[in-house]
Amino acid sequence: MSVETVDHLTSVGVTEMEKAEHTVKDLDASKLTIELTNTPRPVPELNSKETWSCRACSDHMVTVTWLEGKGWQAPKIVPYGPLTMMPTASCLHYATQCFEGMKVYRGFDGKLRLFRPDKNCQRMVISSTRVSLPAFDPVELEKLIKALMKVDGAKWLPKSQPGNFLYLRPSIIGNGEELGVKAPAEVLLFIIAVPWPDLSTGWNPSGGGVPGLKLLASKNDTRAWPGGFGYAKVGANYGPAFVAAMEGRKKGYDQILWLFGPDYQVTEAGASNFFVVWQSKEGTRELITAPLDDKIILDGVTRRSVLELARTRFVAKSAYLSDAIKELNIIERTYTIAEVEEAQKEGRLIEAFVSGTAYFITPVSAISVHDEEFPINMDAGHTGHYAGMLKEWLMEIKYGKVDHEWGVVVDED
Amino acid sequence: MSVETVDHLTSVGVTEMEKAEHTVKDLDASKLTIELTNTPRPVPELNSKETWSCRACSDHMVTVTWLEGKGWQAPKIVPYGPLTMMPTASCLHYATQCFEGMKVYRGFDGKLRLFRPDKNCQRMVISSTRVSLPAFDPVELEKLIKALMKVDGAKWLPKSQPGNFLYLRPSIIGNGEELGVKAPAEVLLFIIAVPWPDLSTGWNPSGGGVPGLKLLASKNDTRAWPGGFGYAKVGANYGPAFVAAMEGRKKGYDQILWLFGPDYQVTEAGASNFFVVWQSKEGTRELITAPLDDKIILDGVTRRSVLELARTRFVAKSAYLSDAIKELNIIERTYTIAEVEEAQKEGRLIEAFVSGTAYFITPVSAISVHDEEFPINMDAGHTGHYAGMLKEWLMEIKYGKVDHEWGVVVDED
Repeated sequence: MSVETVDHLTSVGVTEMEKAEHTVKDLDASKLTIELTNTPRPVPELNSKETWSCRACSDHMVTVTWLEGKGWQAPKIVPYGPLTMMPTASCLHYATQCFEGMKVYRGFDGKLRLFRPDKNCQRMVISSTRVSLPAFDPVELEKLIKALMKVDGAKWLPKSQPGNFLYLRPSIIGNGEELGVKAPAEVLLFIIAVPWPDLSTGWNPSGGGVPGLKLLASKNDTRAWPGGFGYAKVGANYGPAFVAAMEGRKKGYDQILWLFGPDYQVTEAGASNFFVVWQSKEGTRELITAPLDDKIILDGVTRRSVLELARTRFVAKSAYLSDAIKELNIIERTYTIAEVEEAQKEGRLIEAFVSGTAYFITPVSAISVHDEEFPINMDAGHTGHYAGMLKEWLMEIKYGKVDHEWGVVVDED
Repeated sequence: MSVETVDHLTSVGVTEMEKAEHTVKDLDASKLTIELTNTPRPVPELNSKETWSCRACSDHMVTVTWLEGKGWQAPKIVPYGPLTMMPTASCLHYATQCFEGMKVYRGFDGKLRLFRPDKNCQRMVISSTRVSLPAFDPVELEKLIKALMKVDGAKWLPKSQPGNFLYLRPSIIGNGEELGVKAPAEVLLFIIAVPWPDLSTGWNPSGGGVPGLKLLASKNDTRAWPGGFGYAKVGANYGPAFVAAMEGRKKGYDQILWLFGPDYQVTEAGASNFFVVWQSKEGTRELITAPLDDKIILDGVTRRSVLELARTRFVAKSAYLSDAIKELNIIERTYTIAEVEEAQKEGRLIEAFVSGTAYFITPVSAISVHDEEFPINMDAGHTGHYAGMLKEWLMEIKYGKVDHEWGVVVDED
């Protein structure tokens, strides 16, 4: 792997990629074969019940098999359909599984774009090797994702409907038949494309029509731990978090705000990264998010993009500043829920939001800490000013309103 | 659930069972239907390569579907074969999966026995609900396990070969098609029976022929943490541990000795519970294992049985004591690797062993801590005296050499 492909990764990422370097990575998109479907699937209506079910996949999927001692086999695009595996398959018992979440966008210029797909593909190498699944060249994975969109993009994201997206889910699972507690000897990589609701409006049909996420801070359940795997996008981070999430929903909260340690450090919200904008006690405005150093936080592509945009645009003399949008210090550091509570009580809390592929940039309207709920300002109405600006900038890139290196065009010809 | 069914569970267990009580548990073994196979499978030779592959399952399997709003459907015994699921199945992405590990034994009296199956079935309710899978009446699960053995026991554990066992693997997976990050709406419970190698001899073919496990203490990787799910038998505890295990094997170690916290508390070894016998500084002999209080340790059925037998038999005036087998204080408490090292250096370390279904009772012959390996005595030759006695007593119960309530006979007529 060349230095160029990893230069934007954090120190965590680089270390993990170096480890992965020593394993087989002969994934080769040039060997792709394509078998088109004879039974095309209907495209669900935008924001229909079917879209909200998150299961109405597109006509085709990518599959690639990996075999111990033989490496990655030739990739295929085949009609979307069921997978078959023996009851002893490793992924069913030992969570030998990882995935990526990304989207493909139909731009207002008619073009199809991915958003920083190199980052997702690099992260998937890290996730895969964290659960003893094989490494691969992330550039080849990106080619396979584009190949699937070249086949399904025109029908599932028609040019006549710009401003829409599909959710893409590359997954890797250990599917050999062998119950032994060990790295799987047979693996399947698959990529599917799924019509997905727009969660970023905060207008979840079950949410009572009020914009902004309500978060329940969890002091008992812990999502991730140093020396664990919270930084990797592996199945093991999700299922065990559902119980707390479901209990939160019963109490009227959209997501859990995950705290960590005896001092209750703020880490993530649901399956998204979490940001706070506040005025420090010294009077400076700050954008705060948890750091990656402990490897308990997911190195989110949206998180990374928020930080990079904020560092260049929310600075003194920037053309983007205004009365409402003052300059910010951008800070990745450990911070506690007590600091957030204190800022709120002292009137210094300006706004809060989550970032991620599923929720994009969604404002937070309230946090409940030990049964006491405090509201969070959304001074631009349905959002805070900073979150609103960041979302707008990212939308412009994703939908081709501006030309930016993060928006990677998919060749459809 | 009556108090009687949970009285032997730890406080952890009871709390979790009480929570589970509120969810649907209409699993009903009396609705079982049986479809026998037309293509019987060959039984592999004992200790053959095929047995070591842990995939040569018996002729049949139990399957039960659960549907949101409808509950558990009628259980089935069907020919063993592949499972089919959509690529969006929850268990492939979010580790909504749990399992049990138990064995069925062909006794020297010709009878088929399970060992404390009520404990496995109760624990499976705890594991299932920990990853937002449904609860059920554990008594019904036990009936289904027995029903499978009534069908496959005679062929796969013939009466002509007493002293052998099959490994049983009940599993529950979220298999509905829905990518949303939430509790699955469709679930499959299945039970398979697998010929399994005898790992308890320590004579693993890859182990160089030396009895006793060599453990590598891990100071960097963390298996489980408070507020997590280390106490539950969920897939999320396994796959993420494989990388450390594989690195340990490359260095010549059979299993990882998992440490926890800044003081490096000793927790588990590989996927087994871990015990040390030492002489305390005050001169008393102690059997030590980590406690269940933090919910980071699996409430092992063998662990529990070791403690219960030791508490009644390694006591003053017991008929089981001898020169080599002196009385023991049985202690569940937090202890550190430094305490074990100190005991070894001062000549107070008597023996160490792991316990679990897969490894049964297997002695430990060495531990490596920060690149320094120290040997552990196996004063009875291929094992320590205490581990040897405990294994012998449990074998007697499992294979019907003594009549004991823990050995539950399966009706084969």
